[in-house]
Amino acid sequence: MRMVDIIDTKRNGGTLSDEQLQFFVDGVVNGTIPDYQISALLMAIYFQKMTKEEQTSLTMKMMESGERLDLSRIPGIKVDKHSTGGVGDKVSLPLAAMVAATGIPVPMISGRGLGHTGGTLDKLEAIPGFRVELSEDEFIDQVAQEKLAIVGATGEVAPADKKIYGLRDVTDTVDSIPLIASSIMSKKIASGTDALVIDVKTGAGAFMKTLDQSRALAKALVEIGKQAGLKCMAVISDMNQPLGNKVGNSLEIEESLDVLKGKGPADLTELVLTLGSYMVVMGEKAQTPAEARKLLEQTIADGSALDRFKAMIKAQGGNPAVVDDYQLMPQAKYRIPFKADRDGVLTKLSADEVGTASMLLGGGRQKADDRLDYSVGIELHHKLGDKVKAGEPLLTIYSNRKEIDDVEQLLRESIVISDHGEVPTLIHEIIE
Amino acid sequence: MRMVDIIDTKRNGGTLSDEQLQFFVDGVVNGTIPDYQISALLMAIYFQKMTKEEQTSLTMKMMESGERLDLSRIPGIKVDKHSTGGVGDKVSLPLAAMVAATGIPVPMISGRGLGHTGGTLDKLEAIPGFRVELSEDEFIDQVAQEKLAIVGATGEVAPADKKIYGLRDVTDTVDSIPLIASSIMSKKIASGTDALVIDVKTGAGAFMKTLDQSRALAKALVEIGKQAGLKCMAVISDMNQPLGNKVGNSLEIEESLDVLKGKGPADLTELVLTLGSYMVVMGEKAQTPAEARKLLEQTIADGSALDRFKAMIKAQGGNPAVVDDYQLMPQAKYRIPFKADRDGVLTKLSADEVGTASMLLGGGRQKADDRLDYSVGIELHHKLGDKVKAGEPLLTIYSNRKEIDDVEQLLRESIVISDHGEVPTLIHEIIE
Repeated sequence: MRMVDIIDTKRNGGTLSDEQLQFFVDGVVNGTIPDYQISALLMAIYFQKMTKEEQTSLTMKMMESGERLDLSRIPGIKVDKHSTGGVGDKVSLPLAAMVAATGIPVPMISGRGLGHTGGTLDKLEAIPGFRVELSEDEFIDQVAQEKLAIVGATGEVAPADKKIYGLRDVTDTVDSIPLIASSIMSKKIASGTDALVIDVKTGAGAFMKTLDQSRALAKALVEIGKQAGLKCMAVISDMNQPLGNKVGNSLEIEESLDVLKGKGPADLTELVLTLGSYMVVMGEKAQTPAEARKLLEQTIADGSALDRFKAMIKAQGGNPAVVDDYQLMPQAKYRIPFKADRDGVLTKLSADEVGTASMLLGGGRQKADDRLDYSVGIELHHKLGDKVKAGEPLLTIYSNRKEIDDVEQLLRESIVISDHGEVPTLIHEIIE
Repeated sequence: MRMVDIIDTKRNGGTLSDEQLQFFVDGVVNGTIPDYQISALLMAIYFQKMTKEEQTSLTMKMMESGERLDLSRIPGIKVDKHSTGGVGDKVSLPLAAMVAATGIPVPMISGRGLGHTGGTLDKLEAIPGFRVELSEDEFIDQVAQEKLAIVGATGEVAPADKKIYGLRDVTDTVDSIPLIASSIMSKKIASGTDALVIDVKTGAGAFMKTLDQSRALAKALVEIGKQAGLKCMAVISDMNQPLGNKVGNSLEIEESLDVLKGKGPADLTELVLTLGSYMVVMGEKAQTPAEARKLLEQTIADGSALDRFKAMIKAQGGNPAVVDDYQLMPQAKYRIPFKADRDGVLTKLSADEVGTASMLLGGGRQKADDRLDYSVGIELHHKLGDKVKAGEPLLTIYSNRKEIDDVEQLLRESIVISDHGEVPTLIHEIIE
């Protein structure tokens, strides 16, 4: 078999066989296929796409290129959640605790942030002492005992994906649905979960800008998951503005705890309940999403979800006192108000630009090895569709530097107040 | 400027600016753009194509990446010919001599063969002593004095093309018209010629299998040539069967000399006269192709074309006695007849398979560094459309090995004799 013939098959719109995909993935992992041939195939896939069968086959072969976690020691149906990435997206934190509180084991393997998008592991590390790197045994034991753990990958997961992902970034083949879907699902299937809810973001601040694209990605993800034997469904949720009111690491832990205390922002709480209700159904603790939702609301009302979160912090070496005292997390020196410059309705508050602003303050990474400042970030006092008055604070900027002209200019350029505006739909579609 | 943005522009169907193409070509030559980004762009160009302006701009920048020959010392309008490559295509040899005999300087820079296609330089090296590698001064002096020279590149021509060409082969981006056209024309423009006739082959044995593809390539080549200030036209000629009756290095020199002696095969002679007549018009030695054709026929009749060929052999160190005694060139040990297995009309005699058969005998290269056996090859006794009888020799195989089962099997599978068949059109179109 020759790689150039595999490229040719795809370039001419053909379907790659299992053997061809195996040859490709093997060659990527053992280095026998040079980068220039990998990138030529990636670009051919970008243009010619892949059939459902090809996507699933590629995913499984990428998954098999690395280690697959065996979670069979944990009793019950294990349920995980994945998000395609957004700004202010701290959903995983309250969600894992609430679902775990219904008795469903939630073994969650998360990532770090890059660019304007935050990462769940980074947020957790705002909690003093919190360890996101557990051994496989520690991870499994904790989920068995506490019903939840949120950690980084415990072994070498899908090395083929790692290599391909690096090349996609520099060869402009990132936004290809088969490549996105196989990348996400190879890692998720390797994580050993039984069921998966996927939050596919859509809108200006998301990877997929249009509902059509988001729907296509959601369908590809769910299809691959089902083919791989997982229970799987997706929610398409809005990412035109940040989710919730807080962006930044300590700030997002605060807001997550607020949700668990029943005082979280409406949009964040709603999305957590929506995703959670499907997780609880897949975890077989409820028959319908409506029934599941009531169970989840109960976990807030009775404090059991907050208790699970506290238990997780404790199990992973963090200081559980942060639950009651947010000041125990890193705090920014300055709180600088950012004011509306006219009366009107807030019609643009781009998620990606708020995310970039937070990154510029030190809360995110421009490069993979940047160190983070957990204390900084941005708090929103208004969301899209809100009426605002000139001079009123729209945002508070949490900063450790006094001079923030760059951040203010970016925000000034990205915020629009008009005469008319609407509240965007939060949940666009459910893909089962 | 970032290469990933250049890839993005092309991938999304945009037009690359002069600055972007310059950045790309510079980065290819100085090695600052990694191969995986070059190949991603090549694949994007394959799918999104290029505008006329982009093709010309890319060609000029690739040409400028290397040395450009200055032929101004040679008086008169310099005229060259290029072929996209075929089997049995020894056209350059008699053509250069005939055009030179009309007084037009023909500075011809040729290449070597690879795979089933032969190379003009390889054929010339079948002449004992013939040197195809001349210095720039030797080349220019010879054209000034003898009106013709056929040599390999004298300097570093279009290094950007060299790098890109190597990648195209292994990334399945060979058959892209803008990439083919810019590759050919960057080298031809660098050769310093004033006028160029291009023989674009079409059919099963050609790079471009269909007339539509061949026409598109011919138009792109002519357009670029004209934009670069050359006189330029193209002939689309048939390559469903080998050109002429002989395939192999010594054998093709013999046949070229036969053309110059007025006893060449009809198809080869016709194509030489057609291409030559446009060269003579561009060289301003005739007003019309018809008038030019008469001049060329005269160079055969009066022996002046043969005299030019002899002069070239002498000037380039070869033994001019081969002109009268073909036995002075390497001769194969065995001449093995290949017979028709039924009565009928010869309807398939694929150029590429005859070329591959010759390669298997040692007359061509499978890899770029293979050594050639100049003596071997294949002689055709019949061409498409001929009536043949069972048992009659179709071909003679010139071989230095007695066992040629592989060659016979390949030929057996590629030759078809049917009840009905037609003589294919030789000259399909003229593109001016």
